[in-house]
Amino acid sequence: MLTIDLNCDMGEGFGPWPMGKDAALMQHITSANIACGFHAGDPLIMQKTVGLALAHGVAIGAHPGYPDLQGFGRRQMQLTPAEVYAQVLYQIGALQAIAQAAGGRLHHVKPHGALYNTAAKDRALADAIARAVQAAGGDLILYGLSGSALIEAAQVIGLRHCSEVFADRRYERDGSLTPRSHPEALLEDVAAVVAQALELVREQRVRCRTGEWVALRAETLCLHGDGPQAEAFAQALFQGLQQAGIEITYKK
Amino acid sequence: MLTIDLNCDMGEGFGPWPMGKDAALMQHITSANIACGFHAGDPLIMQKTVGLALAHGVAIGAHPGYPDLQGFGRRQMQLTPAEVYAQVLYQIGALQAIAQAAGGRLHHVKPHGALYNTAAKDRALADAIARAVQAAGGDLILYGLSGSALIEAAQVIGLRHCSEVFADRRYERDGSLTPRSHPEALLEDVAAVVAQALELVREQRVRCRTGEWVALRAETLCLHGDGPQAEAFAQALFQGLQQAGIEITYKK
Amino acid sequence: MLTIDLNCDMGEGFGPWPMGKDAALMQHITSANIACGFHAGDPLIMQKTVGLALAHGVAIGAHPGYPDLQGFGRRQMQLTPAEVYAQVLYQIGALQAIAQAAGGRLHHVKPHGALYNTAAKDRALADAIARAVQAAGGDLILYGLSGSALIEAAQVIGLRHCSEVFADRRYERDGSLTPRSHPEALLEDVAAVVAQALELVREQRVRCRTGEWVALRAETLCLHGDGPQAEAFAQALFQGLQQAGIEITYKK
Amino acid sequence: MLTIDLNCDMGEGFGPWPMGKDAALMQHITSANIACGFHAGDPLIMQKTVGLALAHGVAIGAHPGYPDLQGFGRRQMQLTPAEVYAQVLYQIGALQAIAQAAGGRLHHVKPHGALYNTAAKDRALADAIARAVQAAGGDLILYGLSGSALIEAAQVIGLRHCSEVFADRRYERDGSLTPRSHPEALLEDVAAVVAQALELVREQRVRCRTGEWVALRAETLCLHGDGPQAEAFAQALFQGLQQAGIEITYKK
Repeated sequence: MLTIDLNCDMGEGFGPWPMGKDAALMQHITSANIACGFHAGDPLIMQKTVGLALAHGVAIGAHPGYPDLQGFGRRQMQLTPAEVYAQVLYQIGALQAIAQAAGGRLHHVKPHGALYNTAAKDRALADAIARAVQAAGGDLILYGLSGSALIEAAQVIGLRHCSEVFADRRYERDGSLTPRSHPEALLEDVAAVVAQALELVREQRVRCRTGEWVALRAETLCLHGDGPQAEAFAQALFQGLQQAGIEITYKK
Repeated sequence: MLTIDLNCDMGEGFGPWPMGKDAALMQHITSANIACGFHAGDPLIMQKTVGLALAHGVAIGAHPGYPDLQGFGRRQMQLTPAEVYAQVLYQIGALQAIAQAAGGRLHHVKPHGALYNTAAKDRALADAIARAVQAAGGDLILYGLSGSALIEAAQVIGLRHCSEVFADRRYERDGSLTPRSHPEALLEDVAAVVAQALELVREQRVRCRTGEWVALRAETLCLHGDGPQAEAFAQALFQGLQQAGIEITYKK
Repeated sequence: MLTIDLNCDMGEGFGPWPMGKDAALMQHITSANIACGFHAGDPLIMQKTVGLALAHGVAIGAHPGYPDLQGFGRRQMQLTPAEVYAQVLYQIGALQAIAQAAGGRLHHVKPHGALYNTAAKDRALADAIARAVQAAGGDLILYGLSGSALIEAAQVIGLRHCSEVFADRRYERDGSLTPRSHPEALLEDVAAVVAQALELVREQRVRCRTGEWVALRAETLCLHGDGPQAEAFAQALFQGLQQAGIEITYKK
Repeated sequence: MLTIDLNCDMGEGFGPWPMGKDAALMQHITSANIACGFHAGDPLIMQKTVGLALAHGVAIGAHPGYPDLQGFGRRQMQLTPAEVYAQVLYQIGALQAIAQAAGGRLHHVKPHGALYNTAAKDRALADAIARAVQAAGGDLILYGLSGSALIEAAQVIGLRHCSEVFADRRYERDGSLTPRSHPEALLEDVAAVVAQALELVREQRVRCRTGEWVALRAETLCLHGDGPQAEAFAQALFQGLQQAGIEITYKK
């Protein structure tokens, strides 16, 4: 039986500022990437989000980012691999303690924003992240862009990993994501999103922007928690996959 | 045989700014309280300080503080017990992961600055801290001012604890520390400091500012890592205690 | 002719997180208190909010707060008057430059949250704020709680000031606000809010929680920008005052 | 008569952490670049440093940096020109208010660290900085690397500017600084430093690493305030220039 994991970024408020509809989306996903205080999130929000995930049986993941609240971790910062190693370890540990205190445990780690994007191409940074995840212990699974340097870095050191694909993003011929600046970067029609998801899960391939089929390893699908349609998309994806007989579950 | 632990705050630099002579002082102590990034410290400094502690066989402790770098955690902040609980857990976890990745493990937790002082008197805050330490697992020992609400909070929930005394601070008749604003708050003569330490360890008492003897449980002595004489004092204390036949070691 | 100023806190988002309906509320107020980056706001948001105020002919005020983004400046922090003086000056200057670059100029300063509340009672802190506002130059007007230590501090040094009252908050017999923890702290009926506003402006008095009339100097009314009814309340207040023949304008 | 300005970065401590020997160096310089709280500095330190500059008749400059305390503004961050414009304006304004309150006024602006280096090459960023300095008013002078995009940006909009050269750094044939990673990047002999300074001031040229003469506009010389020899170098430079009959003064 085919299986797929549905992951979503969660707990991305800070102090008095909420973000996203975490409670509503938790019903439609199987793993949550929880912000750890560097690009978003604070200890109370982390605790609350962990509680939500536990209540919904959703796997808890750390979502470490660059130390840049103002830029939401989306601005590239020139950190050394040594800095990234220590920062990722710090963030994982912080969430690990909060999850454990709530009776849960960490399942995975997915870098956020500019850290995720840079680690997809920069092997030294990818290695630093993979080593930090391994050093944190607990048999954690590293989530990374399918076919990226981050997945390679995990493979090389024997770290469990999970290849991420996107149902609502357009791909280029080389398997990279069409940059957001491109007018066709996003799939906005819910039927097209579900169709791309099914193709990815069943055939492990996607039709790229220029029309060719591109082979992609698809183990987890990323849902976007922001945007007015976030909940509707999540629901449609969940149902579409389920009706196609695909088991929706996180990697055990 | 009498035993005493010598603890010192460590890793209190931030980014480009160093603080204290950690490397020199590590030789004269048995447990280190390592800043966790809220009042001081950052992931790289935490990693480096953990490495120093491991190299010297010094027990590694988390030193959580208020989220106030500019005020170095010394300014009182009105946090709720729920905020303190989550923040302490966060900081412990962050250091725990870094210690574990370096082959070590956390031994204790000692709150910093205004958090330490408030928790000595405010039982609700003390309870929040004690519960966070317990929830973090790992059989951690909570360090607190001897006779304080923090020690009581640990006792009540069956958490291991360690009563801290000061060799270079004057005490009041009720067992509290003479406020730093008082001209006699600090013992500045090294012989007097060693004598107070010996009295504390051997007789579990101190002669207070107004001349009376005050009974105090003394399990760990705090060394101050700042000030020009820090290293000389540390060395004198270590030797004075050793020559008196007292075993200097952290609580196992 | 009677006049009143309607002020509202604005620009209280941070980085990716919005807050409040600034654009909608600008139409119903005459002066805006713009967050300056310490408890909320960042340079881009400040610039945008200044632009909105200029477009609506609304007077631009600095809204300095404690350096505590996570707590939104609502947590009491024990700062010295010297720290508060320098921090208030810093925040005023930052907004002043942004306002001036946009073709505007600062009109007033209103402390935020815990800084406002503490300065209402703590005269040393109030003096520090008043001196900072005076030192910033530009003939700025200090907004403070009617009858508070902050207003006194301004009077003593000959600083222009503006006494603030609340249409939607209940008052105690001594002229202080009923604490938010009290069940009757807030007036939730829009007609009652308008009635209290009219009484304040026309009679310079309010009927307090226990039924007595309390005399209060009322020069500016605070509108709350948060809450689902914020816009409806603002509109009702503006119309109610206008229909009563009161001129709504900021202090020239 | 030949003239040169000697500038130095100042006020680069933060909260409890000092940096540099500001008081000692103030005697040997004519203009101070004061950190504004983003990469270093806080309101109290800014106030203290402004006071030192005023006491020594040293021109006060703003030293804006990236919002990155942990990385001391030395890590490249991908900010948009719009972000940089608003952030530079904010930092200038903050220092302007503090300087004015102390009876001084701002004289110049020099970007810090990665912002300085990026603005030397990236014209869009340079334009944003130049426009922010112009918008801040007060006839401020923009300091930038001699021959850089930042100086060009100032020229184009008619902003006063001052070309900076380094006496203790090696230059490449194209007029850029030899990267710090190169073994010959720094001149470590004080006589060589003084000689390079004299050549720069008198002949407006420097002998570059590969031996050729490179023409450079030299209006201000940067002294480094860190390093154990900072004070000795500063003193030697000051005396060397003075003995050569060069007037040491800031641009009026």
